Amino acid sequence: MECSDYGLTRTLERDNLNLNPLQRGGVLPAAARKALYEFGDGYSVCDYCEGCLDQIPRPHVNSFLDDLADFIKADAVRTVHGAREGKFAVMHALCEEGDTIVVDGNAHYTTHLAAERNGLEIVEVPSTGHPDYEIKPETYREVLEETLEETEVKLAVLTHVDGNYGNLTDAAAIAGICRELGVPLLLNCAYSMGRMPVELKTLKVDFVVGSGHKSMAASGPIGVLGMSAEWEDLLLKRSPRHEKKEVELLGCTSRGAPLATLMASLPYVRERVSRWDEEVERTRYLVSELEKMDGVRQIGLRPKEHDLVRFETPVFHEIASSHPRRGFFLYEELKKRRIVGIRRGQTRWFKCSVYGMTDRQVQYIIDSFREIVEENRD
Amino acid sequence: MECSDYGLTRTLERDNLNLNPLQRGGVLPAAARKALYEFGDGYSVCDYCEGCLDQIPRPHVNSFLDDLADFIKADAVRTVHGAREGKFAVMHALCEEGDTIVVDGNAHYTTHLAAERNGLEIVEVPSTGHPDYEIKPETYREVLEETLEETEVKLAVLTHVDGNYGNLTDAAAIAGICRELGVPLLLNCAYSMGRMPVELKTLKVDFVVGSGHKSMAASGPIGVLGMSAEWEDLLLKRSPRHEKKEVELLGCTSRGAPLATLMASLPYVRERVSRWDEEVERTRYLVSELEKMDGVRQIGLRPKEHDLVRFETPVFHEIASSHPRRGFFLYEELKKRRIVGIRRGQTRWFKCSVYGMTDRQVQYIIDSFREIVEENRD
Ligand SMILES: Cc1ncc(COP(=O)(O)O)c(C=O)c1O
Ligand SMILES: Cc1ncc(COP(=O)(O)O)c(C=O)c1O
Repeated sequence: MECSDYGLTRTLERDNLNLNPLQRGGVLPAAARKALYEFGDGYSVCDYCEGCLDQIPRPHVNSFLDDLADFIKADAVRTVHGAREGKFAVMHALCEEGDTIVVDGNAHYTTHLAAERNGLEIVEVPSTGHPDYEIKPETYREVLEETLEETEVKLAVLTHVDGNYGNLTDAAAIAGICRELGVPLLLNCAYSMGRMPVELKTLKVDFVVGSGHKSMAASGPIGVLGMSAEWEDLLLKRSPRHEKKEVELLGCTSRGAPLATLMASLPYVRERVSRWDEEVERTRYLVSELEKMDGVRQIGLRPKEHDLVRFETPVFHEIASSHPRRGFFLYEELKKRRIVGIRRGQTRWFKCSVYGMTDRQVQYIIDSFREIVEENRD
Repeated sequence: MECSDYGLTRTLERDNLNLNPLQRGGVLPAAARKALYEFGDGYSVCDYCEGCLDQIPRPHVNSFLDDLADFIKADAVRTVHGAREGKFAVMHALCEEGDTIVVDGNAHYTTHLAAERNGLEIVEVPSTGHPDYEIKPETYREVLEETLEETEVKLAVLTHVDGNYGNLTDAAAIAGICRELGVPLLLNCAYSMGRMPVELKTLKVDFVVGSGHKSMAASGPIGVLGMSAEWEDLLLKRSPRHEKKEVELLGCTSRGAPLATLMASLPYVRERVSRWDEEVERTRYLVSELEKMDGVRQIGLRPKEHDLVRFETPVFHEIASSHPRRGFFLYEELKKRRIVGIRRGQTRWFKCSVYGMTDRQVQYIIDSFREIVEENRD
């Protein structure tokens, strides 16, 4: 056997303006790059472990978790491998096979997979459909009430900001409904925690999960699981046989570099969250400028409350139909201008984000799209 | 809230000779350090994902997994977050709550936790106890046969090399017994895969799990799950709703830097595995030299077949009883000599490994222990 060269470079994505929403919130600041260097080897955070990852004193995982709990206003917090693993753990601790959960219609596929892996039945709260795809609290209530007439509902899941339209849901209102109906609520904050303020106690939800690599400037895979005090005993139950080890976390989760980067990034993340308004402004500017072109339309709730934007772009689809490079023209034209992150061949619609970019960069992107339309439209 | 300084440096452990067995096999070679740099940001391996992590063409996750499968002679292989997550996944796919599994008495706590999290009953195959702690194939057979008389056994688990004594078990023999009795066998290779040859088809086991951060020169957390063809459909079952996504893996597992380091390290790991004999020789030399001192005795099977060594060290315990620094003297004397990795305060016994060290470094360590005894014994 000869090992291939696995093409382990990422220059294109690192050195260019990347519009892929998945990649905007996970870029490391300098402090996290340094932590990655220091903690690159194997079980690097485990040198001073006395049996509990969350209690490690050096590096100060223990005080970091206190700060993180304070940041998201949760009573207890643990790191997990990602948002999906956090969702799986909550479902696994609360539900039995065959149980029913209620989930919003914009849920990420990982919510479905976490439920399927747990053998759960999913009842869905539909969105309003095209073009807003809104999840309305009153619809959530209806579906929850109807379902409760038929069966017990062990858990409700709500996507705080979904990955298709970047719609921000009314978590506080839906949490109120769930509380009233006696159903615990898990809020999936993969796209919000680390970008915008997320506070468990302010929203009055039972659980939150976040995604370090998606929205908290951390190296993947790592996630955050926060909970209110009443769930600690259940979720963080310890092994009868190994007293220090939490069963649902298999003893410990993020035993390495991703944790070090999440720690190093926390001060940076707190600071950027305090500037969330500016990000929303910049996104709205992008939308208003791009919509000035005929054949570009923002889908999802208006005005934007999140940086992820979905556009329908018949203008590019039309160009593609007669362009010698067909659907590839858009990707190629953007790449010429050092803009990446829109899938090759995609022209009918795309998702994008300018999260973390400067005003000048956003203007450059707007100008580039305009130029591409002007140069290619016949 | 003010974020603390989390003490994110690891100079002591990186710049000194580290005897901690946990840390010896996870040190990154230069190529993996480079991959860490390239793939440090967030979801860095996902730029070219079409929905399946294992099919990603850039970097070449797809061909890497082929090479990895070939390396461990498995029909299918996936990355997971670590050995424990691999064990959990196998148990979760094969067993129902309340089912019984058979496990060797030297199993790592994570085997117990994976079983507890799945609600399984554990029946243990006892070791021979002090001082060898051997897991004998005939005892494995007895326990398995006895258990099968009472109940169904869904899975047998064997620790290939355990983390307490560094004993290598006779996996091929125990696999033969399991096959004969119709029970699938999962081999936990956290301490072997990436250090010594491990081939699923040669040992004729059903599943192997490995640990990237422990023994495969990868940045944590990452693990390897290999299986024989007959289990692929069950373990890699896809979601009815999201056709590309494997349910047991929640769609995808190691979506970031750890995977890039595991990939970059594979050629290095293959090469070092081919030199395993030299490592065993070096370990045996360490044992024979340290045992020349009165009051030092290697525990576990003899001669050593693995780099992890457990010593009983009454000589250090005696010195501690009258030393002004008490039990801390050993740690402090070693640290003065730039040797770390033996726990502060521990003198009665310790585990250590010189895996990956040069002959000169091993000699230096031997000489240091001798010097410490001579200088401190009254
Ligand atoms: C809304 C939402 N939830 C969850 C996830 C998955 O996050 P993770 O990779 O941390 O499991 C994503 C990823 O795209 C997402 O958009
Ligand atoms: C024998 C054995 N199995 C499993 C593990 C856990 O490995 P991982 O961190 O990859 O889950 C260890 C770690 O010390 C071990 O020694």
